[in-house]
Amino acid sequence: MDMKELRALGKEKFGKACRMCPICDGRACAGEIPGAGGVGTGQAFRNNISALAEVKLRQRIIHNVHTPSTKFALWGKILAMPVLAAPIGGIAFNWNNYISEEEYANAVIIGCKNAGSLGMVGDGKLPEIYQGGLRCVKEAAGWGIPTIKPRPNEQIIALARQAEKIGAIAIAIDVDAAALINMTVSGQKVGPKTYKELLELKTNINLPIIIKGIMDVSDAVICAEAGIDAIVVSNHGGRVLDHTPGTAEVLPEIADKVGKVMTIFVDGGIRTGFDVLKMLALGADAVLLGRPVTQAGAGGAEGIACLMNHIKEELAAAMIMTGCQDLSGIDRHILYTK
Amino acid sequence: MDMKELRALGKEKFGKACRMCPICDGRACAGEIPGAGGVGTGQAFRNNISALAEVKLRQRIIHNVHTPSTKFALWGKILAMPVLAAPIGGIAFNWNNYISEEEYANAVIIGCKNAGSLGMVGDGKLPEIYQGGLRCVKEAAGWGIPTIKPRPNEQIIALARQAEKIGAIAIAIDVDAAALINMTVSGQKVGPKTYKELLELKTNINLPIIIKGIMDVSDAVICAEAGIDAIVVSNHGGRVLDHTPGTAEVLPEIADKVGKVMTIFVDGGIRTGFDVLKMLALGADAVLLGRPVTQAGAGGAEGIACLMNHIKEELAAAMIMTGCQDLSGIDRHILYTK
Amino acid sequence: MDMKELRALGKEKFGKACRMCPICDGRACAGEIPGAGGVGTGQAFRNNISALAEVKLRQRIIHNVHTPSTKFALWGKILAMPVLAAPIGGIAFNWNNYISEEEYANAVIIGCKNAGSLGMVGDGKLPEIYQGGLRCVKEAAGWGIPTIKPRPNEQIIALARQAEKIGAIAIAIDVDAAALINMTVSGQKVGPKTYKELLELKTNINLPIIIKGIMDVSDAVICAEAGIDAIVVSNHGGRVLDHTPGTAEVLPEIADKVGKVMTIFVDGGIRTGFDVLKMLALGADAVLLGRPVTQAGAGGAEGIACLMNHIKEELAAAMIMTGCQDLSGIDRHILYTK
Amino acid sequence: MDMKELRALGKEKFGKACRMCPICDGRACAGEIPGAGGVGTGQAFRNNISALAEVKLRQRIIHNVHTPSTKFALWGKILAMPVLAAPIGGIAFNWNNYISEEEYANAVIIGCKNAGSLGMVGDGKLPEIYQGGLRCVKEAAGWGIPTIKPRPNEQIIALARQAEKIGAIAIAIDVDAAALINMTVSGQKVGPKTYKELLELKTNINLPIIIKGIMDVSDAVICAEAGIDAIVVSNHGGRVLDHTPGTAEVLPEIADKVGKVMTIFVDGGIRTGFDVLKMLALGADAVLLGRPVTQAGAGGAEGIACLMNHIKEELAAAMIMTGCQDLSGIDRHILYTK
Repeated sequence: MDMKELRALGKEKFGKACRMCPICDGRACAGEIPGAGGVGTGQAFRNNISALAEVKLRQRIIHNVHTPSTKFALWGKILAMPVLAAPIGGIAFNWNNYISEEEYANAVIIGCKNAGSLGMVGDGKLPEIYQGGLRCVKEAAGWGIPTIKPRPNEQIIALARQAEKIGAIAIAIDVDAAALINMTVSGQKVGPKTYKELLELKTNINLPIIIKGIMDVSDAVICAEAGIDAIVVSNHGGRVLDHTPGTAEVLPEIADKVGKVMTIFVDGGIRTGFDVLKMLALGADAVLLGRPVTQAGAGGAEGIACLMNHIKEELAAAMIMTGCQDLSGIDRHILYTK
Repeated sequence: MDMKELRALGKEKFGKACRMCPICDGRACAGEIPGAGGVGTGQAFRNNISALAEVKLRQRIIHNVHTPSTKFALWGKILAMPVLAAPIGGIAFNWNNYISEEEYANAVIIGCKNAGSLGMVGDGKLPEIYQGGLRCVKEAAGWGIPTIKPRPNEQIIALARQAEKIGAIAIAIDVDAAALINMTVSGQKVGPKTYKELLELKTNINLPIIIKGIMDVSDAVICAEAGIDAIVVSNHGGRVLDHTPGTAEVLPEIADKVGKVMTIFVDGGIRTGFDVLKMLALGADAVLLGRPVTQAGAGGAEGIACLMNHIKEELAAAMIMTGCQDLSGIDRHILYTK
Repeated sequence: MDMKELRALGKEKFGKACRMCPICDGRACAGEIPGAGGVGTGQAFRNNISALAEVKLRQRIIHNVHTPSTKFALWGKILAMPVLAAPIGGIAFNWNNYISEEEYANAVIIGCKNAGSLGMVGDGKLPEIYQGGLRCVKEAAGWGIPTIKPRPNEQIIALARQAEKIGAIAIAIDVDAAALINMTVSGQKVGPKTYKELLELKTNINLPIIIKGIMDVSDAVICAEAGIDAIVVSNHGGRVLDHTPGTAEVLPEIADKVGKVMTIFVDGGIRTGFDVLKMLALGADAVLLGRPVTQAGAGGAEGIACLMNHIKEELAAAMIMTGCQDLSGIDRHILYTK
Repeated sequence: MDMKELRALGKEKFGKACRMCPICDGRACAGEIPGAGGVGTGQAFRNNISALAEVKLRQRIIHNVHTPSTKFALWGKILAMPVLAAPIGGIAFNWNNYISEEEYANAVIIGCKNAGSLGMVGDGKLPEIYQGGLRCVKEAAGWGIPTIKPRPNEQIIALARQAEKIGAIAIAIDVDAAALINMTVSGQKVGPKTYKELLELKTNINLPIIIKGIMDVSDAVICAEAGIDAIVVSNHGGRVLDHTPGTAEVLPEIADKVGKVMTIFVDGGIRTGFDVLKMLALGADAVLLGRPVTQAGAGGAEGIACLMNHIKEELAAAMIMTGCQDLSGIDRHILYTK
């Protein structure tokens, strides 16, 4: 399986839910929810793309980097690359029902594991969604990160306990789902979190905690003060609040402020290994891939592994072309500024 | 009825007059008058869109806002949202005759009232247009705002008297129609207004007066000095003077100058509840929706109520994602600036 | 005949030479010469459009301008508007042969005269082209401006003598044709002009002289020093040198420098009366229309008069919406700047 | 043969590999490798185009330049123009197999020579590719520049020896191919070069050495210090590292730093003689054309000569319109800056 075959599979399976555009930039699917688009006018989705496009790489070829290492250490594990699969729920609803919720979770967990990456699985209005994801992580001997919606704390803690039991690497809470209509209308209360609530979570959960949805320095600082282990700089793929800046735009300031005390993930508009390199240069420790993984899911676990290996190869090539031997050598000096 | 059905209805009814583009941005219909487009090259219409698109929202999720209030107080009334329907005349002429002038006015007044919003009705070359709108407002027990073209003062005052009698909430004068060809060629004199003329109107009309079409601080100051109750920052949807800035571009300066002494409305390119939030953050007290309401009119009063409720839900979601409990909490701090 | 019918006629007659795009901006026809496009990548054509689009108008409606005057005085004549038809040669070659060279010249001269505007006619590789234009101006009792290619001075002077004899209002020399391939390959020598050559022309020609193609302050100053009566700020519609700035970009500096000692015309991307107002605000005394006139030529003299009247009405409306009573009231204060 | 026929031939022969877009800007073919597109999202390719488009030319027509000279002196030879054909390998793989590798090399060498230009030929995973190019240069009595991939130094030196023997004008090493997957997967080791390795090459090769792929001032300085004769400012047409700046963006700083001690070539997005003039004004001594030559290859050697002559004519016209008598008169003063 190669990237070309994957594209063909996607075109066949997704119908109008995702058109597999040559460049996935949120134009064709603007506002399509259900669907793969951004909310409202789709501007937040497109801002992710344009913010990244404005970042430029300094090509350097007079040096000695021939075989760069893309290895990434995370909480005692070694990943083959600083690239994870983002938690995506509602596949049936948003992606033309091309795969069942649990089959998708399984493809993500297994595909990522096989490529040396790490997959995240999601939560949804039906309890079955979280439980299905958990089963997949368990079968992969814990090599995965269950993600919990921003439910009331007691529910989160109970669900996190289950993740602890199956030996998951960490848990994530996608607080950027705080205003998701489809949760609230189905009676699943979700909402923002306060410093006190974060503190309570940290005290009661014995796994690294990742808070997803940080786009603002002040939010990041509160997470750090509450002892949260990691944040994901994310606008939920532009699917909850239209007109946010792109994640690449807010990342540097956030990384400067809390990057030394916590792990910084970022998602939003990352399509290639070149984009990964840029996000690392802007201050991220690793990135999450959303839509590209769901698209690669058209090829099942094999498709997702294929994508991850492709991204890794692009990242390695990009490291040669900018003179970076390993991830520690990647900083803002590899970015071109006038 | 939902937004998807409304779109389908519009595509069916509008013909080429409005193509119901995925993002309504004035490109496809540039220069189409008759039609829904902007005048000339359509640049003023597009400037409304691009000026708003440049404004970005600061996503914040670490706080305690779970159920924000979108209630808006206006001259002793409480609206469910700070969103009104703009006065649109010439439906037959511009929108493929999909609905009669009076049926449209009725759908706007009733649809808005049912959703807790407030509709404005228009004036035109035939006296029947204003009278028809007035009848609709009367049937809604005064829950509406008749709008009068910038005719000679004695005519305006006579028409305003009629609005007073039926208990309308306020009257508006769309002075931005000062150069509308179709009025002058049909012998209906319209034109700009001077400070003295505004003063005379204020002295002789016993309802709050809204002057529509302010795009310049000096104009706003004169309105304030004449005791005008409210202005609408508006370029008439880009349909009278091509190449104006977008309304979102001029709004902040105007609001800074006169926002404390009068009510500031704004229209122009507002498509979603996210856009509403941005306009409020830029200094508006409330917004007017033009083209989106006319499009929703394809579903009659029910369609317009559906749109208004949808916008309200988006606004509430946007307030959660930016941490605003009620309208008083919305200011420029929720905007992202580099 | 109205603008809509004119568009339909154009679509019928021009074939692929001009697609009559909703907004005529040089994208569809990029690089098409023969054709209506800009040279090379067509960027100079598009720069004309984008430079104008960046200029914004300050809408003002609180004032007393009801019936503005668009009258323009030029060398003892009064035009109904500050809008002339640019000299366009090579119609047969570039515009699908929709009209003969002389029929076109006639339509321009008569159509403009009937609308109170003033037409320019051109020169070409065949002597017949200049002579044909001259005949048209003669039949219109001199109401027209013959344009001569930048040939050797003795040829220009001889051709200008003929224009004097028929009582033409002025003559123009389009020095921006200095590098036109189709002239040189057909043995008609053309080229740039020096200060001395300009001086010689001025000394020997008894009509006002217009030098077309000035895009640079230093060139404008030399023209002024040589006693030239008028310049046209022009990049020849982007058809000779790709990648020039737009004319609206260079106009202000040139007008500031020589506007008090000579008449300043400008062309390039002007499509509407709103564009005319902007060019006047930037420092032009009057504008030339190129492609719009050629397009309107599909309706013959009547079509061109229709276009000119339409532009005049738009200009008058724009003057109401910005508060300008006559041309003397138009300056940079009507432009919006942040 | 003219440019129009060449376009028609290309459309016929290239299939989907190259769509012969009106403006070749990397949009339609984004990410298409195999194919003519840029790597990843194709942004680096597009950055070449947009960086050039931002550079504007100062049109000047009041001067005495009638017949400019485009002659360019390079290492004792006189070229008719400062325009060379870039080395392009992998024609079969990337361009729909429209011509064989050696036929292409031959068309480039002969077509360029016939037009007074100079062609470069490439290297590839099969030794046959370099040998074939060498044969073509030999048959043209050395009028060509063989290009060697950034292989281990001993291989480069051996291949350069062969170029010396056939009397080639110079050799080039496209170090920007340092991370090309198709080389490494086929067991052909390539990689970046260090200062020491460059020094070794210079010491052991008796031809001018051109290092291709310099996008950074520090890399340029090292090349200069190692005695390298020339560099090509290049991002390999955006085909190896996505998201680099455009070459026109980095060129001025590099030329300022090392332009006096070495020859500066540049490629990337150059489509016309107008673009050539801009690159020279930004500091290049001469330019390389990539995709345009491969497209013109549809007409064989005759097609490539036709392209080169066309570019030369455009350059001459552009020199008239900016007042440059010869290449020495071209500097940043001919660029328009606000």
